[in-house]
Amino acid sequence: MPQKVRIALDAMGGDVGAAVVVPGAQISLLRHPDIEFLLFGDRAAVEPLIESRPRLREAARLVHTDVVVNMDEKPSQALRRGRWKSSMALAIDAVKRQEADVAVSAGNTGALMAMAKNKLKTMPGIERPAIAALWPTLRGESVVLDVGASIGADAHHLFNLAVMGSAMARAVFGLDRPTVGLLNVGVEEVKGPKEVGEAGRMLRDADLPDLEYVGFVEGTDIGAGTVDVVVTEGLAGNIALKTAEGTARQITAYMRSALGRTWRSRLGYLLARQAFATLREKIDPGRANGGVFLGLNGIVIKSHGGTDAEAFAAAVDLGYDMVHHGLRAKIEQTLAREPAATPRVGEVTS
Amino acid sequence: MPQKVRIALDAMGGDVGAAVVVPGAQISLLRHPDIEFLLFGDRAAVEPLIESRPRLREAARLVHTDVVVNMDEKPSQALRRGRWKSSMALAIDAVKRQEADVAVSAGNTGALMAMAKNKLKTMPGIERPAIAALWPTLRGESVVLDVGASIGADAHHLFNLAVMGSAMARAVFGLDRPTVGLLNVGVEEVKGPKEVGEAGRMLRDADLPDLEYVGFVEGTDIGAGTVDVVVTEGLAGNIALKTAEGTARQITAYMRSALGRTWRSRLGYLLARQAFATLREKIDPGRANGGVFLGLNGIVIKSHGGTDAEAFAAAVDLGYDMVHHGLRAKIEQTLAREPAATPRVGEVTS
Repeated sequence: MPQKVRIALDAMGGDVGAAVVVPGAQISLLRHPDIEFLLFGDRAAVEPLIESRPRLREAARLVHTDVVVNMDEKPSQALRRGRWKSSMALAIDAVKRQEADVAVSAGNTGALMAMAKNKLKTMPGIERPAIAALWPTLRGESVVLDVGASIGADAHHLFNLAVMGSAMARAVFGLDRPTVGLLNVGVEEVKGPKEVGEAGRMLRDADLPDLEYVGFVEGTDIGAGTVDVVVTEGLAGNIALKTAEGTARQITAYMRSALGRTWRSRLGYLLARQAFATLREKIDPGRANGGVFLGLNGIVIKSHGGTDAEAFAAAVDLGYDMVHHGLRAKIEQTLAREPAATPRVGEVTS
Repeated sequence: MPQKVRIALDAMGGDVGAAVVVPGAQISLLRHPDIEFLLFGDRAAVEPLIESRPRLREAARLVHTDVVVNMDEKPSQALRRGRWKSSMALAIDAVKRQEADVAVSAGNTGALMAMAKNKLKTMPGIERPAIAALWPTLRGESVVLDVGASIGADAHHLFNLAVMGSAMARAVFGLDRPTVGLLNVGVEEVKGPKEVGEAGRMLRDADLPDLEYVGFVEGTDIGAGTVDVVVTEGLAGNIALKTAEGTARQITAYMRSALGRTWRSRLGYLLARQAFATLREKIDPGRANGGVFLGLNGIVIKSHGGTDAEAFAAAVDLGYDMVHHGLRAKIEQTLAREPAATPRVGEVTS
């Protein structure tokens, strides 16, 4: 019998909680029958939702807790109050105790990251974890990191982000040597902050077998899919991600209003509606929902807080894929194999 | 006779140069017959293009120079080599000597900013200039700054960006008290970098009559048009701008491919093609082409380097609007009227 993929769910996380998490788990289970779920949450809220879904009931186990981390709680506060008993904490504990392969939560990002760091600790050689997003592009998908875990990054941290992001691209896209670009204000070598220039020299000098550093990229290159892995610090990455999401929403709204204006355009819309359905699916931020916490001794997936069941299922799918493709082993391999992953600073500052 | 708006043009700037600048000037002139152009560039390249346009010939004067700043020149190099004689430098000189009200160039951004700073100097009370973009939103347009002039910003600089951006919004949108948001990783007060939090407290405490500070905003809020002025440091702002541009291109490409797939969708497209034309115009980055350099003793507009005549004309229009609406006077007014514009640091760090 092939081994099951064991997924721990924070059943109370997100703006909606169990009413989205449980149906989302069901959707993902129908796509991946080899999932085993371990749900943490309030029995009164979660159990009826599981019981009404026979397939899920077979594949899920519920652990009761009535402690929930609120969406607006400060990370420090969530850690003090919810470290031992909250549904979020218990899901991470399951990964730590190796009772689950991955934890998925739609809860408060700051609290989830604080708890994941506190419980799982960073991998040897990594000082700060990152959040990586799968970004739909014209050429398929790219890994973009950091999209919000750490604010500010020195050259060494950017170098580590490149290593972690390319390990993820190897795991998810099945590439031997993914291409990596550093996000900057311009592609000319003369522009941008000093630490980004330094990280570029470090990546070029290290010439790692697991990634191909191609140089600086700009914001326009993300959607174009110029590289497999886009590296930037967390504030800029988070702003880029949310700005792209906002632009997609904006264009969808324009489209809706433009196409409803005359009978010709309304008729045209009716005829082309299948094409529009495809399009909506492609630009729907929910499709790529879920960020992967990288650099910890365990995989944690953050789903958007304001999500629906289909989008939560996408985050669960992502967790499933990570386990299947051996993400952690890939990162450990790169870090262990490459002494350059902890570069000798004296050599790289010019 | 009403006063003319005098616009100095770097006729050699950009990837294409005179072949885009001169037709662009003509387009803008047809929209604003009260423009007077002062063009700087190579007579052999520029003169024939002007001569073949009778309307423009009447309204334009050409000053010959054969020195051109290259698109890939480092700012320091451009300054050494082109400070006195280049078409870019002469256009800025015209503003400095008050022979022109505004200068427009599609040349190398770094060189243009270096020369503008060197020649025009920053306004009293402003240490670092900024580049502001007009960003099309679901509610109209917003001012977003800084989109690439300065990398990194302390709380004081973010405060000054808010003051300059709201002066621009007052000038361009005709608002008494534009709303201002600080771009951050989340809208909760607990998140994000320290300097952004500090700038927020400074803006709240100052309670300026010329702007209404509404708090933190996220990337999604830019396209939504949540606030009139979005404030961020230059790296994140530049990445946001280029990411939005890339996303718009990406969606246009999806749309084209989705609509060509079946006869039904092709027919639908034909019927709705007017709607699509409107849409393309709305999401075309060229429509909002042009960044305004803020904080200098003179107005300089940067047009995209890889632009066409219509997009260059949009940058000239923007320069025209700035002069018409008294941008500089508005900024000076706010800075002079508000002692809080140079806040007392001791009061605001908590």
